[in-house]
Amino acid sequence: MLRVGVLGCGNVGSAFVALVDSGAAAISDRTGIDLEVTRIAVRDLTRERPGLDRVAFEKRVTTDAHAVVTDPEIDLVVELIGGVEPARALILAALSAKKPVISGNKELLSTNAGELTAAAESAGVDLLFEASVAGAIPLVRLLRESLAGEHIVRLTGIVNGTTNYVLTRMSEEGIGYDEALREAQALGYAEADPTADVEGYDAAAKAAILAGIAFDADVRASDVHREGITGIEARDIAFAHRLGYEVKLLAVAERCGQPVDGEGGDEPAPSVAVRVHPAMVPADHPLASVRGSFNAVFVEGDAAGELMVYGRGAGGRPTASAVLGDVIDAAHHVREGSRGRSARRRSTHLRPIAELHSQYYLTLDVADRPGVLAAVASVFGEHNVSIRSMEQTGFHREARLVFITHMALEADVAATLSELRGLDSVERVGSMLRVIGPEPAGS
Amino acid sequence: MLRVGVLGCGNVGSAFVALVDSGAAAISDRTGIDLEVTRIAVRDLTRERPGLDRVAFEKRVTTDAHAVVTDPEIDLVVELIGGVEPARALILAALSAKKPVISGNKELLSTNAGELTAAAESAGVDLLFEASVAGAIPLVRLLRESLAGEHIVRLTGIVNGTTNYVLTRMSEEGIGYDEALREAQALGYAEADPTADVEGYDAAAKAAILAGIAFDADVRASDVHREGITGIEARDIAFAHRLGYEVKLLAVAERCGQPVDGEGGDEPAPSVAVRVHPAMVPADHPLASVRGSFNAVFVEGDAAGELMVYGRGAGGRPTASAVLGDVIDAAHHVREGSRGRSARRRSTHLRPIAELHSQYYLTLDVADRPGVLAAVASVFGEHNVSIRSMEQTGFHREARLVFITHMALEADVAATLSELRGLDSVERVGSMLRVIGPEPAGS
Repeated sequence: MLRVGVLGCGNVGSAFVALVDSGAAAISDRTGIDLEVTRIAVRDLTRERPGLDRVAFEKRVTTDAHAVVTDPEIDLVVELIGGVEPARALILAALSAKKPVISGNKELLSTNAGELTAAAESAGVDLLFEASVAGAIPLVRLLRESLAGEHIVRLTGIVNGTTNYVLTRMSEEGIGYDEALREAQALGYAEADPTADVEGYDAAAKAAILAGIAFDADVRASDVHREGITGIEARDIAFAHRLGYEVKLLAVAERCGQPVDGEGGDEPAPSVAVRVHPAMVPADHPLASVRGSFNAVFVEGDAAGELMVYGRGAGGRPTASAVLGDVIDAAHHVREGSRGRSARRRSTHLRPIAELHSQYYLTLDVADRPGVLAAVASVFGEHNVSIRSMEQTGFHREARLVFITHMALEADVAATLSELRGLDSVERVGSMLRVIGPEPAGS
Repeated sequence: MLRVGVLGCGNVGSAFVALVDSGAAAISDRTGIDLEVTRIAVRDLTRERPGLDRVAFEKRVTTDAHAVVTDPEIDLVVELIGGVEPARALILAALSAKKPVISGNKELLSTNAGELTAAAESAGVDLLFEASVAGAIPLVRLLRESLAGEHIVRLTGIVNGTTNYVLTRMSEEGIGYDEALREAQALGYAEADPTADVEGYDAAAKAAILAGIAFDADVRASDVHREGITGIEARDIAFAHRLGYEVKLLAVAERCGQPVDGEGGDEPAPSVAVRVHPAMVPADHPLASVRGSFNAVFVEGDAAGELMVYGRGAGGRPTASAVLGDVIDAAHHVREGSRGRSARRRSTHLRPIAELHSQYYLTLDVADRPGVLAAVASVFGEHNVSIRSMEQTGFHREARLVFITHMALEADVAATLSELRGLDSVERVGSMLRVIGPEPAGS
């Protein structure tokens, strides 16, 4: 019997306890592993825990999380508190007591993964965190185990359900950002203060975790270039549709430069680029059809080719399912006297966004008078940004120029926009979206 | 150093050897595991092995596969011969010599999984077979590890790239089956004799393997209800589009009846349904946008909700990547003195297709004269098959009735069609496609 202590009993915690309480016999039958949640640490004893039997809950509950971690009758710790402290201290205490730890803590893993994995390594026990990124989607196991021998080139993910819901509604209903956001808030998909989602902070934390696993790279959330979706307008999406694209908020982590062949000992420190921004995704790309609050991550590997995993990126029960998968994994290792793969983090060169090569979608509000286009086009040309297509919409006070560039260097595009902002005839630089996928043939 | 013996060096085998030869240093650096392919058994010494260095190949090659398996200097065996014998005997010999075995053998795993997993179990070593189903897509690890604690309800997969390529071309170009198949053959996506793919045998073998893993069920390829795509016409697909569907060849494995709660000891033997047939899939279902030769499996779990994994289901390098993931897993266990999860197969009740409840798309070629529709409709009614929509196309000699039913019992639909075949006014019963997804609201 493996005795599990659970820290934190919110949405995910109570779903996890309910899964184990109701499913222990089936889990034992299927895996041979006997689990029991014997202690639960919470901050507030008075809060309702829907889905849990009150009597059974009260027998196990405490407000002393540290006592749970150090209890010799607890074999494994599940941390679902969230945030950096006290979660970090509790996990380090559990690891130093040689207890495997399962965590669903995105904030902590996206800032302190190096410290925590090193502590697990030196304790010789598992630290598993499948639930910390993209809920029920088994990305960590995919990257660390299935693709253990794979040279991963790039991850491109839709990892925030709130923004994907908002963008899906804008795309399917033609409504504006504000209306779509209000609808998401009414349905509980977005918080009253939606900043963490719509400004890309949540996605950036997940991108840091994914880059860490895929490339053994020591990447923190604050290292990730981040742009949100608040500037996306209905007309941007309408334009994207006409060109055969959907607009999605993407988290991208990619290896830079040529594949490292690793001959002659240690691989050099990886050079990676990690960024979160809205982008135009070709309509026939698998990510384009990820709708509503679903998440998906598209993986490009050197031998495996293109893979994608899709599912619920949040929610109590889906996330609890990922926690349970990790708990069974750790329990299996405890029983075998073994442990899972070691993880390590190497210091990493992060390529700045200025060095990105991409195609760009750009809009300018301009005065509609002779010579304006020539002036604008010459600014693009001076900065080596080549235009693939241009379209003017509106007239007079409302004129708008919409550009799609050929592949260009981000620094050059930034310099172009900066100079354009200084032109008398340019009233406003509007949206800037990176366009993924190959350039259309013949363009 | 873990010394790997490879049996079979075709497309997948030579890609695997090349991956290890070129990637050993990077694998060692990333995972701490040192791999070397030290022996390779082939049937034909004279055959070209593209991508492999001839001198290095000839040093390792033999035609005596049994000698590789029993060689005390081989630590782990990779079986990529395919077919039942001699692969089965070689795997059993390797397992009884306590060597972990990695197999990509769909035919063997879909007929003899029970015997092989029992042999691995009693030897206490790993038998891993990620590559035996859906190439690079990590389904086995997903079902066995990530979802180890999950009550899986249903798997719905596109697991044959040839038929998905043919159906995609029919859907996107409006061409007929014969033309699409010829194109697939010209591109190497279909064999000169395409029977195994187009009649669903390949998908049925994969469905059996998936059902075995998801439900611990002892299912063989021959147990799987199987229908192919040779009867699909361009007009069926055109009609599906008008109603908002795509036509896909699906492999479905589902648990029947209420979730088993497992209280009071062993779970009873599972009751499962496993089938392969073309189906109408709603255009907004994630499987509908799986195009060309890609594969994907959609998983419905009780807590995890909806998950999908997508990728290359075939091809030398993608499949070799899955083999390599398994080899690293087994090597990790060898180093730890542990082993992976045990698998078991329980005798299983297989629900016959007659007990399926589904919506159905049906076409009849009829004589266009008064009273025919009434006669046809009354046959549906007598068999409790309720019609959701009916449309007539063509006139006189060409009249065709297209029906979509409400949810109905397969046995009732079969009885309906059988009686309809006997009507004078029915010239031909055409296509019969199951329609997945919820019934449209208000229908």
